[in-house]
Amino acid sequence: MGKLFVIKIGGNVIDNDAALQSFLDDFATIPGKKILVHGGGKIATSIGKQLGIEPDYINGRRITDAATIDLVTMVYGGLLNKKIVAALQALGCHAIGLTGADANIIPANKRPVKETDFGFVGDIRNEEVGKNTIELFLTNQLVPVVAPLTHDGKGQLLNTNADTIASSLAVALSASYDVRLIYCFEKKGVLENVEDDSSVINLIDQEKYKQLLAGQKLADGILPKIDNAFAAIGNGVNEVLIGDAKDLVQNTTETVKGTLFRE
Amino acid sequence: MGKLFVIKIGGNVIDNDAALQSFLDDFATIPGKKILVHGGGKIATSIGKQLGIEPDYINGRRITDAATIDLVTMVYGGLLNKKIVAALQALGCHAIGLTGADANIIPANKRPVKETDFGFVGDIRNEEVGKNTIELFLTNQLVPVVAPLTHDGKGQLLNTNADTIASSLAVALSASYDVRLIYCFEKKGVLENVEDDSSVINLIDQEKYKQLLAGQKLADGILPKIDNAFAAIGNGVNEVLIGDAKDLVQNTTETVKGTLFRE
Repeated sequence: MGKLFVIKIGGNVIDNDAALQSFLDDFATIPGKKILVHGGGKIATSIGKQLGIEPDYINGRRITDAATIDLVTMVYGGLLNKKIVAALQALGCHAIGLTGADANIIPANKRPVKETDFGFVGDIRNEEVGKNTIELFLTNQLVPVVAPLTHDGKGQLLNTNADTIASSLAVALSASYDVRLIYCFEKKGVLENVEDDSSVINLIDQEKYKQLLAGQKLADGILPKIDNAFAAIGNGVNEVLIGDAKDLVQNTTETVKGTLFRE
Repeated sequence: MGKLFVIKIGGNVIDNDAALQSFLDDFATIPGKKILVHGGGKIATSIGKQLGIEPDYINGRRITDAATIDLVTMVYGGLLNKKIVAALQALGCHAIGLTGADANIIPANKRPVKETDFGFVGDIRNEEVGKNTIELFLTNQLVPVVAPLTHDGKGQLLNTNADTIASSLAVALSASYDVRLIYCFEKKGVLENVEDDSSVINLIDQEKYKQLLAGQKLADGILPKIDNAFAAIGNGVNEVLIGDAKDLVQNTTETVKGTLFRE
């Protein structure tokens, strides 16, 4: 099977024009098949404020009301996605911007209301991800650039977390490719010692993970990321990497600077 | 050669939710290969006002400054394009939303400054329209939904008139398809008698056009549309039709309600 990189960048890169350009310069140089999934960033909030749309959170999670789904459709699906596409095209990277509604690549269900009504938030229907269409694009040298939006197949766009989209795409495409799923975040990787930024663990397998759990030295907040990484691997993804956006190119090689997860 | 419909709708349909839904219901039923090109509508102006972006016109033509290109990228490329795509997907029409930057389908040059600086407005590089990519989509049962945005290939998105985009796509694809280019506007078609809405001329060829010009009975404002129609035909498009959005389905058949232009 051929190799495929599914790479996710978040708001910390998107909100900084210089950091974003530098990331895209790097992304464009990665040879072979690749997909970029981007998050939102603070610009949606600032444009929303100007439009009188105040962000509404419950337990740290943003509620997506009717005004907010229109806002993020504009900002994520329009402004950010198309700016990234135009910038990549300028670098000779044959980018095509997509939401989950486009070519029906990511169908989702509006999250059922339990204790909390999250509004227009989509939970991906993983078995229906349009992997044939994405493969068609990849086979024809196109580079999908995916905004964090899905749809319910009944005409409603939905807000979906970019990490989740990246993971769903990686899992769906692992049937056809050796996938390395790369999450760019604000750290170099998982640290052996939380107080030493140079103590990045370059490889974590199930055995190492058990040791780390037993040692209780992991930073707060990293455990869910590790669990998500092994969940993707359990669903067919070959490798998951978490690392710094600045180390992207190195992190697509065998000698990574970040933390690589493997079975 | 197979048949292809390139269909353009403008603001008068887009600004009216019921009219848009009715149009999309009809569009979805058209069999075979088709492309939808949509204009902007008034929503960009109203959102722009809320964001403190006042529209600026010179000789009736809107100037696209830096704030405005961001605005239309959000509204045309994001909000409108994705709402149309999601609505079409709900109707079983396999829509994919695109700007001219996506997959580099419509490269353009920023309009040179002469008497007027139109700002970030793009004049299409017709010989570089990505017809192979669009054919790839059409061959794979995808339905391109194109927003009125192009790009300069150097990272800058540009504002481009939807009529012009529709015409450029129709001309580029006429090498591979028998194209009928359909402009939906607010009239039934070209009227023999401007005071009689039932006097639609169903077929105008070069001979009929000469008669109409000699008779001087044509409505003001229709001449540029007719000239554009014959310009597209001169560049390889088989047929151009202008008619009412409400008559779309009939206007894709041989017995049209609007005005069909043929060599």
